[in-house]
Amino acid sequence: MKKKVYFAGSIRGGRQDETLYREAIEYIKLTDIVLTEHVGDLSLNALEGTVDRDTRIYLQDTNWLRECDLVIAECTHPSLGVGYELAFAEKLGKPCYVLYRPAEAQLSAMIKGNSYFQVFDYDSLKDLAGILDGILEEV
Amino acid sequence: MKKKVYFAGSIRGGRQDETLYREAIEYIKLTDIVLTEHVGDLSLNALEGTVDRDTRIYLQDTNWLRECDLVIAECTHPSLGVGYELAFAEKLGKPCYVLYRPAEAQLSAMIKGNSYFQVFDYDSLKDLAGILDGILEEV
Repeated sequence: MKKKVYFAGSIRGGRQDETLYREAIEYIKLTDIVLTEHVGDLSLNALEGTVDRDTRIYLQDTNWLRECDLVIAECTHPSLGVGYELAFAEKLGKPCYVLYRPAEAQLSAMIKGNSYFQVFDYDSLKDLAGILDGILEEV
Repeated sequence: MKKKVYFAGSIRGGRQDETLYREAIEYIKLTDIVLTEHVGDLSLNALEGTVDRDTRIYLQDTNWLRECDLVIAECTHPSLGVGYELAFAEKLGKPCYVLYRPAEAQLSAMIKGNSYFQVFDYDSLKDLAGILDGILEEV
């Protein structure tokens, strides 16, 4: 059965990794379902322009966190929202996998020092497929 | 009675606001207690150099979140750790106050769209004192 993945990445914190998010999401979609496709392509965000946009995003994202089978978070680019989502997912007991590139970022001790999270470091996009395969097989 | 404040700010995500964190912390300390003084001055961090540093930081910070009377988070600079801390504090039911400078950052919808958090925008350091006074009087 296909797994529902909540893919988390920086949105308002900065879009430097947008291409990488998109490629990771496309890769996961070869075998499974990604609830948060807009993380890789903001044009997909159906919530744009609604009346109380922030509240709707918050409600949709927390609903998806409840619905998902696992969370995969790319954390190289610092993001307030991703930190919130990881703590929220932990509270719900969802399996959480954190990916980051150590050459470009220091991962927060709130994540790295917390044994709840499985942390994977990698160097470049080409290493991601193998890591994603391992995660999707494990859950 | 003095209130115990968990002041949250970016550490590994970037130290661009270090001076502002320090000034805010010094201001709060005129009347109350700041548990997380190292956010404004990393040289105070007694955890540097210990064997499993990340785990110790995680355990100390989550203990301080349990102990504090309120959380004040400066969120202009995106930070994974601060996002985690805010969700953790929300889970504990601690009053949470979020400060940011809208000219320099877009605040995550996970915070701005979540009615649990009281969000204050401000322009510069000189506006902070009045906001901090209001927060510390309210709790």
